[in-house]
Amino acid sequence: MTETSHNNNERHRVVIVGGGFGGLFAARKLGATGFDVTLLDKRNFHTFQPLLYQVAAGMLTTGDVCTPHRVTLRRKKNVRTLMSTVYDIDPARRTIRHEAGTLTYDTLIVATGVKHAYFGNDQWAADAPGLKTVEHALRMRRRIFHAFETAELTSDRDERAPWLNFVIVGAGPTGVELAGAIAELAHRTMVDDFRAIDPQSARIMLVEGASRVLPVYPEKLSRKAEAMLAELGVEIVTDTLVSDIDGDGVVMKGPDGERRVASHTVLWAAGVRASVFGEILAERTGTRPERGGRLRVAPDLSLPGYPEIFVIGDLAAATDRRGRAVPGLAPAAIQQGEYVARLLKRRAAGKPVRDFAFRDQGSMAVIGRNRAVGNLPWMTVSGFSAWLLWVLVHIYALIGSERRLRVMLQWVWKYFTRRTGDRLITGRPPNTRRLHDRDAGETGTNPPDRGG
Amino acid sequence: MTETSHNNNERHRVVIVGGGFGGLFAARKLGATGFDVTLLDKRNFHTFQPLLYQVAAGMLTTGDVCTPHRVTLRRKKNVRTLMSTVYDIDPARRTIRHEAGTLTYDTLIVATGVKHAYFGNDQWAADAPGLKTVEHALRMRRRIFHAFETAELTSDRDERAPWLNFVIVGAGPTGVELAGAIAELAHRTMVDDFRAIDPQSARIMLVEGASRVLPVYPEKLSRKAEAMLAELGVEIVTDTLVSDIDGDGVVMKGPDGERRVASHTVLWAAGVRASVFGEILAERTGTRPERGGRLRVAPDLSLPGYPEIFVIGDLAAATDRRGRAVPGLAPAAIQQGEYVARLLKRRAAGKPVRDFAFRDQGSMAVIGRNRAVGNLPWMTVSGFSAWLLWVLVHIYALIGSERRLRVMLQWVWKYFTRRTGDRLITGRPPNTRRLHDRDAGETGTNPPDRGG
Repeated sequence: MTETSHNNNERHRVVIVGGGFGGLFAARKLGATGFDVTLLDKRNFHTFQPLLYQVAAGMLTTGDVCTPHRVTLRRKKNVRTLMSTVYDIDPARRTIRHEAGTLTYDTLIVATGVKHAYFGNDQWAADAPGLKTVEHALRMRRRIFHAFETAELTSDRDERAPWLNFVIVGAGPTGVELAGAIAELAHRTMVDDFRAIDPQSARIMLVEGASRVLPVYPEKLSRKAEAMLAELGVEIVTDTLVSDIDGDGVVMKGPDGERRVASHTVLWAAGVRASVFGEILAERTGTRPERGGRLRVAPDLSLPGYPEIFVIGDLAAATDRRGRAVPGLAPAAIQQGEYVARLLKRRAAGKPVRDFAFRDQGSMAVIGRNRAVGNLPWMTVSGFSAWLLWVLVHIYALIGSERRLRVMLQWVWKYFTRRTGDRLITGRPPNTRRLHDRDAGETGTNPPDRGG
Repeated sequence: MTETSHNNNERHRVVIVGGGFGGLFAARKLGATGFDVTLLDKRNFHTFQPLLYQVAAGMLTTGDVCTPHRVTLRRKKNVRTLMSTVYDIDPARRTIRHEAGTLTYDTLIVATGVKHAYFGNDQWAADAPGLKTVEHALRMRRRIFHAFETAELTSDRDERAPWLNFVIVGAGPTGVELAGAIAELAHRTMVDDFRAIDPQSARIMLVEGASRVLPVYPEKLSRKAEAMLAELGVEIVTDTLVSDIDGDGVVMKGPDGERRVASHTVLWAAGVRASVFGEILAERTGTRPERGGRLRVAPDLSLPGYPEIFVIGDLAAATDRRGRAVPGLAPAAIQQGEYVARLLKRRAAGKPVRDFAFRDQGSMAVIGRNRAVGNLPWMTVSGFSAWLLWVLVHIYALIGSERRLRVMLQWVWKYFTRRTGDRLITGRPPNTRRLHDRDAGETGTNPPDRGG
């Protein structure tokens, strides 16, 4: 492995761990240079996370938000991609250990991001899926549409109710977008689709610990978002913490005490924490992680004491040269990836490098079919104009022009027809109704009509 | 269940089992009539099977070939869809038993189709996935692209070889299309994508028991298909039967004796047999199944002795009124579904009904990017013109105009760019290299970055 990989040892070896926004854009920017670049990712594709919620809600299909790394990096001959999980690092030897061997690096870029955190209640994961990977999105999609199908099949009113209750935990952008999408699905898009149930009777609850949705946004925007959500029929439950989740419902603690909501569909959009490799990197380098396991980096995004190791994206706790904290958003990760690439090129050319500066492009949350709120650096926007801006920004940001066309086509389509066509319940074993089996997955080992 | 379902008991109750081409088109044709129609399917969507091989080869994504039944049947207010598996039938009581209860029918339409058959070697299923459902296609896709990724990771030549050997068993249209698609992928589309391996060195073997590919086609077409396949670099192995399959390869018996081919990617495109419900229907009605478990039907497609039970699609062994056997093709299933719907309507109106007549539209097989062979009733076509015809026919046949646009877009794109963008390896657990784990499925329960 290591031989075949470094037939070219005089070249500066850059190893990138993780193919999210940070890692992929670093790799692209390092393409067609003298560097010997290796991108390691446990997946063979990049996932456009900001749109995963649309896969979960059946608006987009997986291929629309995922791009194979090899397609993106084909022309960058000095960049090779390995689909392999990275397990460990030896900072002294400057090697990393992955599934198929070890790699030596001159520069290491760590961009392994974050995963869900259930605030120490990992047992909730089974009943409250999150939304970080495409499998998560498929799992949510399966749960959401399976709930409606089961309700249609169930004549007993008491049995049916929990299938039509949807609880979204966490009212950050993801939670808000999910709640809006499900509410529109139930209260608008699917109104004609069922015979026994009325999808409009579905309850969509958005639960938030803070006193308003989108707590990091200006209060004015939060209020606008709440109004838009309410109009779609979303019940907003603020100042409320979830104290327990099981297959049959949620226990929440609010101002007026504790209550239980019966629901078979609980979706998690709350906490995140550092990826496992982030934890390992911290241990091996004796770095003390910050809140959520993020790693504090120097102004040039290197790990203090390890100028050859850079940490970028959601895993990094960074402050830009104007002294403001860099948020955990795709644009920030992209800028950091491109910054480190530029830094390496300038260093190799003996040129000076300034500290990282974050160009704030703001952030947005879509609510329903044609409204959004946007917290932009120079202003706030809301309503249709915000939605239009969101569409343009995201179409532009999608990787691959075919994908752009495809997604635009679908959004235009959905906008005019109110139809979403990808509500597929895949991977569910056919002969069972037990809750945990709804997540048995899109497995090929036991397809619904498998022989025998 | 049964109460809520038959609030309208004076209406003639038509129950359709299976949402493939036959069942879905029967349901559509029975829409907006006086009949009380229920379509039961274990899936909540229709799968456009003729294009599944393109999902397996990463050309199309799942949403392109699957259409939710509720979207298709939304406006047919007298048709309800239940996502439920049918287990049993009581022909005397005229009831069927499904996941969520029992249903009484006045007319039953059985369209449960066929599944793979491994000629009594069901243990092969794990190592040689077939292509009947979208999960199968995702499983094949996972295997195909995982094989290339693993080869790229493997420095040991002997270890690498079996990852670059692909064996397709069965040279009917599906096998031919799969072999052509994989050969084009390896020998044309992906040539620039890897650094350690040369995808052009991949061996694609198409194994067929008969003396030529597409045995049901005129010999002239078979020869043309063989020439096109050979040009794409497919090794055609005829007069050869597979005697064993395991995770490491295939044993085949040919004219010059037995030999073993080392391969981690064996794809099954050979035998099929009746669905389980087909077998149960045969038992309950005392019908003796024909070869492959298919059920012989009367000229009006009813089950002999059961004028209220119709069997259509691949499950039916039918002879049309001109005395020719009806082939197991999508157009035949569609025509049968629509015929039964028409029959019921005319009977209800007291009008006479003629026996089923099959309008033969021929069949085609695509080979690679822009060639195909077509066995049409009035002529045979091959080459580019055949491919163009194939494209038009399939675009037209796709359900849902958005899907048509989307797929056309992608084919045009692929035609001009030679790029396929949906080569996603989803659902594979990250930390393992064992063969059977490659099929652990697109499960949400254990996504690659799942917490903990």
